Amino acid sequence: MRNIKLVIEYDGKDFNGWQKQPNKLNIQGEIERAIKEITKEDDIELNASGRTDAGVHALGQVANFKTNSSMPVEKFPIAINNKVKKSIVIKSAEEMPERFHSRYNCKRKTYRYIINNSEYGSAIYRNQECHIPQKLDVSSMKQAIKYFEGEHDFKGFKASGTSSKNSVRKIFKTSIEVYDDRIYIELTGSGFLYNMVRIISGTLVDVGLGKIKPNDIPEIILSGDRQKAGKTLPPQGLYLLKVEY
Amino acid sequence: MRNIKLVIEYDGKDFNGWQKQPNKLNIQGEIERAIKEITKEDDIELNASGRTDAGVHALGQVANFKTNSSMPVEKFPIAINNKVKKSIVIKSAEEMPERFHSRYNCKRKTYRYIINNSEYGSAIYRNQECHIPQKLDVSSMKQAIKYFEGEHDFKGFKASGTSSKNSVRKIFKTSIEVYDDRIYIELTGSGFLYNMVRIISGTLVDVGLGKIKPNDIPEIILSGDRQKAGKTLPPQGLYLLKVEY
Repeated sequence: MRNIKLVIEYDGKDFNGWQKQPNKLNIQGEIERAIKEITKEDDIELNASGRTDAGVHALGQVANFKTNSSMPVEKFPIAINNKVKKSIVIKSAEEMPERFHSRYNCKRKTYRYIINNSEYGSAIYRNQECHIPQKLDVSSMKQAIKYFEGEHDFKGFKASGTSSKNSVRKIFKTSIEVYDDRIYIELTGSGFLYNMVRIISGTLVDVGLGKIKPNDIPEIILSGDRQKAGKTLPPQGLYLLKVEY
Repeated sequence: MRNIKLVIEYDGKDFNGWQKQPNKLNIQGEIERAIKEITKEDDIELNASGRTDAGVHALGQVANFKTNSSMPVEKFPIAINNKVKKSIVIKSAEEMPERFHSRYNCKRKTYRYIINNSEYGSAIYRNQECHIPQKLDVSSMKQAIKYFEGEHDFKGFKASGTSSKNSVRKIFKTSIEVYDDRIYIELTGSGFLYNMVRIISGTLVDVGLGKIKPNDIPEIILSGDRQKAGKTLPPQGLYLLKVEY
């Protein structure tokens, strides 16, 4: 069977997240439906690099599916785009070896979190960022984020109640950039726990507000205590930027 | 009476344009309603620097209203923002001399038109830009836009059927910038005719496609013939950026 890898952009606002669920609009189900129509195969299964929650956006989600269709690979984006809601865009399609799996073979993921730090926020981009009206001290945030780099047990930075046997993850690269009133937080890692980027971003906001000192971060990570980290920021500021293999 | 000037951002997608119309959601009506509730004055009238069409965005629309309210001017943004839809944000309020009028006193306006020139367009920003999949030659567009600078009769660059006694306008400044797959067209002028920015942008797209040569522009302007200019691009790519007095 052929194995097709898709790179996908979506507007998280319009969906109840990536994962297929009955009676709820979801990205996986929407794209699978389109592929089934195109290939006339009933058993299409689309595996993503990972789920994203309701409201979370992707500029470069990766997912793959197996098919016997003989359609040229470069035709898949336009064929799928013609059949899905406009809030999903397939950006490219590529033929992969049969054993390629979007989730298991993923080496690095990059997420961005966008904060609008102006007094009243934005009307146009309100579903594409998180508004924090209190002035944030970005230079402290830039110091703090460096402590997240490297391999750590991020037990304190996952949604409480979620089980995951192993909460050790490696963060390869971090950055914070400012564009006028906006703060872009970016994290590249081996993988991320449930809500981990939103909790790290919330912790960085506490640093920006002066509630947490940059050099408190190592102790907070070591404690493994969800209570010591910051709040989970809302989904609309989060973007899955890139998945690397 | 006090005269209050507001700077306003709005998401054009959610409204049938700026202008008040019965039974249609519009920006003017929505803000006037909020101001009436706040001031308890029934005869509030909000005058903008100009109307914008359904779908057109503003990052810096200016409008003013007269009131006898004694509320401190700096309280107006938050008070209004609390009462209007989230797709409108008052960014600032300022007290002006009684004779100030947002439309009559306007000296310069700046508009931006955003084109997404990638193959499949964007899912997330689909209501915030115009998608043109054919590769545009930006260097030709940069040559062409310069011909619009200066004082010209823009008769051929207004929606056909609209009357305006005087179609002479002065364009002070133009620019085209490229950010990855996006092309930002900006025009600063003394004022703009109905649909003028969208028609100029459509003409520049024809230049980018090679249908019009950059040095054909002076002749097209001189002809005053709407048929010789390009198409009117759709509203969602257009932003009223700034109004100066």
